Amino acid sequence: MTYFLDNVERTAGYEPGFQPQGSDVIKLNTNENPYPPSPQVLEAIRNLPAERLRKYPPPLGDGFRTAASQVLGVASDWILCTNGGDELLSICIRAFCDTSHPVAYPNPTYSLYPVLARLQNCPVTELSFDDPKVLDQLAKTQAALTIVCNPNAPTGQLIAAEKLGKLAGKLKGVLLIDEAYVDFSAASCLPLVTEHDNVILLRSMSKGYSLAGIRFGFGIAQPAMIDGLLKVKDSYNVDAMAIEAATAAIRDQPYHRVCVDKVKTERTRLTDELRKLGFEVADSESNFVLARSVKMPAKDIYRALADRNIFVRYFALPGLEDKMRISIGTPEQDNRLLEALRAILAAK
Amino acid sequence: MTYFLDNVERTAGYEPGFQPQGSDVIKLNTNENPYPPSPQVLEAIRNLPAERLRKYPPPLGDGFRTAASQVLGVASDWILCTNGGDELLSICIRAFCDTSHPVAYPNPTYSLYPVLARLQNCPVTELSFDDPKVLDQLAKTQAALTIVCNPNAPTGQLIAAEKLGKLAGKLKGVLLIDEAYVDFSAASCLPLVTEHDNVILLRSMSKGYSLAGIRFGFGIAQPAMIDGLLKVKDSYNVDAMAIEAATAAIRDQPYHRVCVDKVKTERTRLTDELRKLGFEVADSESNFVLARSVKMPAKDIYRALADRNIFVRYFALPGLEDKMRISIGTPEQDNRLLEALRAILAAK
Repeated sequence: MTYFLDNVERTAGYEPGFQPQGSDVIKLNTNENPYPPSPQVLEAIRNLPAERLRKYPPPLGDGFRTAASQVLGVASDWILCTNGGDELLSICIRAFCDTSHPVAYPNPTYSLYPVLARLQNCPVTELSFDDPKVLDQLAKTQAALTIVCNPNAPTGQLIAAEKLGKLAGKLKGVLLIDEAYVDFSAASCLPLVTEHDNVILLRSMSKGYSLAGIRFGFGIAQPAMIDGLLKVKDSYNVDAMAIEAATAAIRDQPYHRVCVDKVKTERTRLTDELRKLGFEVADSESNFVLARSVKMPAKDIYRALADRNIFVRYFALPGLEDKMRISIGTPEQDNRLLEALRAILAAK
Repeated sequence: MTYFLDNVERTAGYEPGFQPQGSDVIKLNTNENPYPPSPQVLEAIRNLPAERLRKYPPPLGDGFRTAASQVLGVASDWILCTNGGDELLSICIRAFCDTSHPVAYPNPTYSLYPVLARLQNCPVTELSFDDPKVLDQLAKTQAALTIVCNPNAPTGQLIAAEKLGKLAGKLKGVLLIDEAYVDFSAASCLPLVTEHDNVILLRSMSKGYSLAGIRFGFGIAQPAMIDGLLKVKDSYNVDAMAIEAATAAIRDQPYHRVCVDKVKTERTRLTDELRKLGFEVADSESNFVLARSVKMPAKDIYRALADRNIFVRYFALPGLEDKMRISIGTPEQDNRLLEALRAILAAK
């Protein structure tokens, strides 16, 4: 017998990327930034008074809201701090969806969306990202919540803000634009939040700010929307140290820009080198590339790389079986990956 | 118009206790520990390598699981790390309850339970904690999830483990025993977890270990139960720094015992002194006391204390209007509270 709800029982749960240990490991499988967080972050953590650990944190993450407000040019009550971007996804599904209020999204995309939908027991409409009319299809669906990952994971493609703005205008429900990777792309959908009361942007400090360890994301939306989402979040959802770290990181924009530029430059080089090796690689607007293997099954390459302590991400999912998602590393890490790929393909 | 589900729209949201700022404030309103966390915690945070911030944390909080396992004498796969005890409550409501699977609990109790139930849109059965047959009533209810806060907040009362064991044996659903305050009580329900596959214990590092700021709680249950709950939690729900801090704290049992003993000694003294001032105060097994005011409306005392920068908790809820919940402070803080109460009552 089970004590769990049927829908929970049926859910497989989300499978986080493997976290290999050891210093000789090349880890390009979970889209972490290859560069450390700003030195200001470590400084802030080391100077945190014990008193801040002892007391409950500010429930709304005030310090971060103020700092992010200045960087983004939106008022602080347009910002909702969350325990990683994942918590914002979970809050949105719980706020808008149930057995009679569906969620819709184009696929392939972040594989957490269907897991959260199953946990909330809401109907799911999955459309194909490859369909050139996918945005029209989404508009017709009229789900209570429509999620578009932009730039998308694991494909790296970016939809223009104007197109998503048109979609927002056609929807009766909410449009959640998951911008977890936006720091690495040419443009964001930030202006849409002012124009549409049904748009929520998701941001993350994990990738662009090298803070995957502290679990800090945030939402941007009009204050009425933020107020509703606040009711769903845990009372003290972000911890005092994480608020401090995220605040220091977003304040240090010069450091942020340097790291992002290095990743983007390396992305161009890695894309070129992978193409030279015969992989099909679409241009990416993220801190990863999706490489389609034509010479050898992607799963075999993935395993051969893992044998050499080089980890990329392989998804055994429809449409992704012939591809690997490779996070952009440092030039040194990527060179070791490229050498290994050459050797693996040559030994075939 | 609203984009939110009706049940979310109708929810008022949980009102966290006020977090007054300033050094001259006496803060006895949110049951924080008056003593700082173990020096080992600060040491651990200061020595945390930047690499741990950059990478995703271990999804199950491995380091903490191992340390807690040694302290509690249960295997590590009996432990689920959560972003504060609140996240475990939220996970349980989502795992077991929906529109046809109710939650039940005796009241007055932690006021987050009804908020979470409303967000999950599940029926709620509230029974009276004052009813001597409340456990029999709970057994008859046969809710999918039964929550007993033990020791209870805000009353401080403790139900014997044997009685809750009998209740667990009678229930077809899950019994969640919220032991957030158990560090300050004579006994815990830990043995029940071995005896009953439907019992989950909630623990918190916020009170007994002075770590309210880092948001770290955990559940204890049999592995099959933990495995099911894992599916509902966010993939990376606890952050790398919080895991490090909580691990250092639970390892330093000598420091923990000293702090807890000081709070318990002071609890006895504060209870006696409040009684001398004419308050009705039940013996508490927690780090707070619930004081019933008979000479003057509790709300007026609460306000007069706030005017003097002394903060206690007042709940405008049925059965609590004539009471204040006072967290146990240091002897110096409590002396200032007692002096203020004397002055307020004399000026009446």
